[in-house]
Amino acid sequence: MRIVVDAMGSDDHPVPDVAGAVMAAREFGDEIILVGDEARIKAELDKHDTTGLSLPVRHASQAISMTDKPAEASRTKKDSSMHVGLGMVKNGEAEAFVTAGNTGGVLAVATLHTLRRIRGVLRPALTVIFPLPTRPILLDIGANADCKPEYLAQFALMGSIYAERVLGVQRPRVGVLSNGEEEGKGNQLVKETSQLLAQSSLNFIGNVEAKEFIAGGTDVAVADGFTGNMVVKVSEAISSHLINMIREEIKASPLTAVGGLLAKPAFDRVRRAMDPFEIGGAPLLGVNGVVIIGHGRSNAYAIKQAVGQARRAVQQDVVAAIEAGLADGR
Amino acid sequence: MRIVVDAMGSDDHPVPDVAGAVMAAREFGDEIILVGDEARIKAELDKHDTTGLSLPVRHASQAISMTDKPAEASRTKKDSSMHVGLGMVKNGEAEAFVTAGNTGGVLAVATLHTLRRIRGVLRPALTVIFPLPTRPILLDIGANADCKPEYLAQFALMGSIYAERVLGVQRPRVGVLSNGEEEGKGNQLVKETSQLLAQSSLNFIGNVEAKEFIAGGTDVAVADGFTGNMVVKVSEAISSHLINMIREEIKASPLTAVGGLLAKPAFDRVRRAMDPFEIGGAPLLGVNGVVIIGHGRSNAYAIKQAVGQARRAVQQDVVAAIEAGLADGR
Repeated sequence: MRIVVDAMGSDDHPVPDVAGAVMAAREFGDEIILVGDEARIKAELDKHDTTGLSLPVRHASQAISMTDKPAEASRTKKDSSMHVGLGMVKNGEAEAFVTAGNTGGVLAVATLHTLRRIRGVLRPALTVIFPLPTRPILLDIGANADCKPEYLAQFALMGSIYAERVLGVQRPRVGVLSNGEEEGKGNQLVKETSQLLAQSSLNFIGNVEAKEFIAGGTDVAVADGFTGNMVVKVSEAISSHLINMIREEIKASPLTAVGGLLAKPAFDRVRRAMDPFEIGGAPLLGVNGVVIIGHGRSNAYAIKQAVGQARRAVQQDVVAAIEAGLADGR
Repeated sequence: MRIVVDAMGSDDHPVPDVAGAVMAAREFGDEIILVGDEARIKAELDKHDTTGLSLPVRHASQAISMTDKPAEASRTKKDSSMHVGLGMVKNGEAEAFVTAGNTGGVLAVATLHTLRRIRGVLRPALTVIFPLPTRPILLDIGANADCKPEYLAQFALMGSIYAERVLGVQRPRVGVLSNGEEEGKGNQLVKETSQLLAQSSLNFIGNVEAKEFIAGGTDVAVADGFTGNMVVKVSEAISSHLINMIREEIKASPLTAVGGLLAKPAFDRVRRAMDPFEIGGAPLLGVNGVVIIGHGRSNAYAIKQAVGQARRAVQQDVVAAIEAGLADGR
């Protein structure tokens, strides 16, 4: 398998991106193509022992940075590492694209300029696997701020296929994220989406509240990209607020400080369990190729994990499965 | 001052409701009118020493329960404690109403059957003061699932007046809750609301992300009731998930268990700091009278705190200030 890794993606690119590619080439034995500034990539590769690994470099003269405006950059930086890398997937030179770069940028380059949508897809959706014991997935988390019920119904189908094929969940339970489980709760979008899903062949379980989602009450939850993004951002912000507060309070007296030191392994386990890097990245479902978007703060391990995720999506033929599912009109 | 407390509100009514009313009468020296099943209230009052306190009882033959459907119950249970208590505020027999009962029920009874809206208010909003060091407020958190930009602009005005008058914030900063601070981020509702607020005389600071809100970057944040409710529910669910996880991990080995025991005072301080009961309840802004809605799980202390909150809203003439603010067309 050939997987393209964007060497110009992460906040500290190309360091973690190249290191992650090397780790992935070693662990999976695949060809990992690094795309970006050739000189910088080669200099970085020289720091690693790459004997026996297949790590070709493809030059791209531009890069879309975190501060670039996505739509504009996708039009003007036609030789960006994203254009070149996604173009290779489109042309069949590689099977998947992994980046830790500007999310809006990947989205625009993939949707508007290279891969484009799978036939029948109304809107691609950015998908997150929540770092919770049951690994529930939520989509859309930011590709589409304003959505119609038909979009959410497709997100449900795409999420269900992903959970089934990549996460190995049998007949995934699908819910609509809402403020209350009772029928009649939710906004207009939630109500109309529920009606559509009730008629589908998916394993639709109705409205799902935040609490239920977090407790593992569903395998897939759908939301408009504004709400989904809010859920992700609030989760992150509340978690770090709480952890900081506990840390401060523990440091406040010598006795609690000793307690905190003894309990440290427990805190470390919690931190690890909730580490989004364990999972890798967010698949962009609905575009005509496998695309995994990592966090800007990704380290080498996170990049390697994202490559692993991309491999499974390729092996399980997620793109073809989504196309077939849509054609079935499920 | 005369404040009505719904004795039939909380999950364990009338026990905490009556005990909280007694605490409030003692602490504030006000007349606290208990409304609900007279026999049960009197039996409960007999358990307390009420010497010198003014705690009259007003009988109501019905009660709206947590499982009642709000709109229906507000129509059919015309002699509920909510109807009777809110009716007293409407008739000038009392200055405020406090309940820990069915939120949708209070909302329906107040808006449709008793107090009704302040002149000029398009939609009342349920308002929460977040248990965070900076006490930011968020509205609407569930009264209106679907909103128009004009509603949110009014929420901003009402929230700003509340923060100024009741929380003592000078010229409160007001933001629109959004997924990204940059202009152009947000859904259609956020964008149009921002335009309206930019033209207002409020201290509008633009879009506010979850992280910024939680870090105290704004005093008031507005959202549609679906989004606002989601933010509250996700915050609660993530906090308790994280705390449970830490508790489990600490118990997992003897050494970390000892550490947890030593660090317990620190955890207790965090729990207290994040306790919504410290604040009391959620004001329902925009109805023509002071209404504070407590959590169903309220204990006596929470009820007392909610009464304290109601007193400040009455003293600071929040209702008249909102009416004047709307008339000014701010």
